[in-house]
Amino acid sequence: MQGEFDLIERFFRRGPARADVALGVGDDAALLRPPPGCELVAATDTLVEGVHFPAGTDPAAVGHKALAVNLSDLAAMGAEPRWALLALTLPAADEDWLAAFAAGLEALAREAGVALVGGDTTRGPLAATVTVLGSVPAGQALRRCGARPGDDVWVSGTLGDAALGLAAATGRLELPAAVAAALRARLDRPRPRLALGRRLRGLARACIDVSDGLVADLGHVCRASGVGARIERAALPLSPAAQAALAAGGDPAAPLVGGDDYELLFTAPPWAAAAVAGLGEVARIGTVEAGAGVRIVEPDGSERRLEAGGWDHFRGRP
Amino acid sequence: MQGEFDLIERFFRRGPARADVALGVGDDAALLRPPPGCELVAATDTLVEGVHFPAGTDPAAVGHKALAVNLSDLAAMGAEPRWALLALTLPAADEDWLAAFAAGLEALAREAGVALVGGDTTRGPLAATVTVLGSVPAGQALRRCGARPGDDVWVSGTLGDAALGLAAATGRLELPAAVAAALRARLDRPRPRLALGRRLRGLARACIDVSDGLVADLGHVCRASGVGARIERAALPLSPAAQAALAAGGDPAAPLVGGDDYELLFTAPPWAAAAVAGLGEVARIGTVEAGAGVRIVEPDGSERRLEAGGWDHFRGRP
Repeated sequence: MQGEFDLIERFFRRGPARADVALGVGDDAALLRPPPGCELVAATDTLVEGVHFPAGTDPAAVGHKALAVNLSDLAAMGAEPRWALLALTLPAADEDWLAAFAAGLEALAREAGVALVGGDTTRGPLAATVTVLGSVPAGQALRRCGARPGDDVWVSGTLGDAALGLAAATGRLELPAAVAAALRARLDRPRPRLALGRRLRGLARACIDVSDGLVADLGHVCRASGVGARIERAALPLSPAAQAALAAGGDPAAPLVGGDDYELLFTAPPWAAAAVAGLGEVARIGTVEAGAGVRIVEPDGSERRLEAGGWDHFRGRP
Repeated sequence: MQGEFDLIERFFRRGPARADVALGVGDDAALLRPPPGCELVAATDTLVEGVHFPAGTDPAAVGHKALAVNLSDLAAMGAEPRWALLALTLPAADEDWLAAFAAGLEALAREAGVALVGGDTTRGPLAATVTVLGSVPAGQALRRCGARPGDDVWVSGTLGDAALGLAAATGRLELPAAVAAALRARLDRPRPRLALGRRLRGLARACIDVSDGLVADLGHVCRASGVGARIERAALPLSPAAQAALAAGGDPAAPLVGGDDYELLFTAPPWAAAAVAGLGEVARIGTVEAGAGVRIVEPDGSERRLEAGGWDHFRGRP
């Protein structure tokens, strides 16, 4: 892409410096110094315009979110983020768009202490792929596969906000402006739960981030662990904005199946409950049980057994 | 993307296993064990349909090339490849296309000993972003910035094949079928020079891979090193197919400005010349000199001074 080198150098050399970066942007590859005694943690995720964010989204939000969804994967492993690489595809070298995108990405990079060490800028339909690298003390990573019957199921923050925000942003749901703005902020600027993830080392037995929706992501944990789970619908944590949106006609399934919340969903043994609760901003929402699949217990005591599928599967039910 | 998990698991769990992978595809992130005493080497590159490869390209070639261009960056650093992550954007979940793409990628991964440890599959315009991770003994990486006046300039393999192959593939150049096929193979299935890159540690002072074209990439080395360079046009290594293509009316500038050859371009002090020549498949094409920019000396002794720009700049000259 014409000007690729200039663009990268101008906009992406301003993130935080790290002593463990021997060589950052500007050569064929970055040179990094992993800490001894640690495992390297690596994840990659793409955001595509029109698929992961509506056309016309504030470019600073796109930059934020492209990094945030990846950092959320590191959070779910209990990892400490260190470095990021960005592959950005742009229809044209729009400097204003790129400057805003870079500012959004850079602000979160600074907050998380991540150095941007490599990049590629290509011409094409708008998409951003970020790869993040972090570290975790060897053997201490949080995986999906460790849940055991009897574990409590926990989730951080609140659920459904992003899906309700998307419904409002796309005109499917009419909401007061303040409510819509609060939900839209959750959709556009998810906060990766990095500190919580690290504190869950040694407490959580399994962990995942809620990107596909509670039921789908809990299904992933259940399949990987060979267990089932029972969720108390009344225990699902809802933000004031989500409560207002549900009262205004928002999809009542949003907290169960809405994606993009980027909270941590994890299981922990009952002996750890007080320690987990003490971490703050976490809610106990159910129990791991023998078997397979996810059961939702409604406030009236009725229950639905759901296959461990995602959105479409769940929505297709009566 | 519906079926994302299945697709990834089915097609991308078959690459080579490595003992330094603690956890591969299937969790929020991969867990990797970097070797002690090494620096981590990381690069990312995107291929977009219609930009980096013509629509309708054999998907196995796209899979090969998506990994190859990244491995070429590791080769240019003198690194040993270890792990790769793939972010694939597809217009639809076309299993045939995906199976062929995966086969092309997997074959090269096996050959290079790279484990595919993470992935993301999204719906959108066709593009593949690969991130590769490798290692190099601390302090021994080949950078762009070490060239000194008096160094010899070397290049591996042959130049211009990919550009001439693209001209033939897009109908801009009529060639005998065997010639066109040989050039197209260079375009579609570049061979990253991994073994050569590792052998150049301690011999080369600066190194880059030829992705943008000889003049542009040598320009990058010159700028990073604060030097200039003089290239003997008659010394440029040409394949028999490229010679045939040039004789048939191919752009005579292709060996100088054609991109996508993925050869290694490097400088080395004169005392290392015999050792470098002994590595095979390398040609001495010029000399590093004080100053800036790249001079091309034609066979008749005339010369052109080129700014260290890329394609367009060069082509814009009379």
